[in-house]
Amino acid sequence: MRLSSCYLFQGLSESQLDQIRAIGSETPIKGGQWLFHEGDSAEQMYVLKNGAVELLTTVDEVELPITIVRKPGNCFGTSTLVPPHQYSLSARCAEDGLLLSMQKTDLEQLIKSDLEMGHALLVNLAKHFLDRLKETRQELKIHFKTIFKSMHH
Amino acid sequence: MRLSSCYLFQGLSESQLDQIRAIGSETPIKGGQWLFHEGDSAEQMYVLKNGAVELLTTVDEVELPITIVRKPGNCFGTSTLVPPHQYSLSARCAEDGLLLSMQKTDLEQLIKSDLEMGHALLVNLAKHFLDRLKETRQELKIHFKTIFKSMHH
Repeated sequence: MRLSSCYLFQGLSESQLDQIRAIGSETPIKGGQWLFHEGDSAEQMYVLKNGAVELLTTVDEVELPITIVRKPGNCFGTSTLVPPHQYSLSARCAEDGLLLSMQKTDLEQLIKSDLEMGHALLVNLAKHFLDRLKETRQELKIHFKTIFKSMHH
Repeated sequence: MRLSSCYLFQGLSESQLDQIRAIGSETPIKGGQWLFHEGDSAEQMYVLKNGAVELLTTVDEVELPITIVRKPGNCFGTSTLVPPHQYSLSARCAEDGLLLSMQKTDLEQLIKSDLEMGHALLVNLAKHFLDRLKETRQELKIHFKTIFKSMHH
């Protein structure tokens, strides 16, 4: 599994990636298993080794899929790195697989011990959230456009 | 103007806030004046001293307001801190006022010279983008709910 394939770990050196791997513990997952729910206290961040995980949100008991994490090395549960440390989406295993799970406390300690790496991680994370924000605004614009058109026809 | 009233500067010490003030230069703004457009290269971040600035996005030449920055000390143009350094929204002065503008290169130098402060800034920024993302997803959910209801009536 290449950690460097994940947006979060872009630009990190091999020794920094090794330090990150070192705090991860392997966690097998089974299809259908919930890993966490939206609003839960975010105590762990995950990296996918294999299998697949769905990220979703719920509206009036209806599930709204956001994305499926399939690429080994990709990460999720990154709200662990940001106050108030609450998951912003729910995660459910879509295909049996293996995760690398990292404790919030271990991540925080690692970041404190190597602030240059910590800074790189946070820049990557901020960029990721901003990209998702732009995408989501784009979706809203499409809805807005539809409403706007129906008003003028 | 209290910089510490802005989300971006939460948790910074007085001497760190002084360093940030030191790289800002005062820029008067006039009602109706465009400060930047969505997609422009983000070379400057701004802090409001007084007046008001609208942040907006455009859909088929129709303006979609996102927010109005009115509170002295609040900042915008924070895409300056994140690759690919492009503004994600447009900004137009809504009321005559005064900004503190900070060059990207000066901000980057400051962050490199005090990584602890840089880390605090980036955690605050990531949190801000995540909060806006949650809000925007919430708006999408409302649209989704409306569509879902109209399908079942």
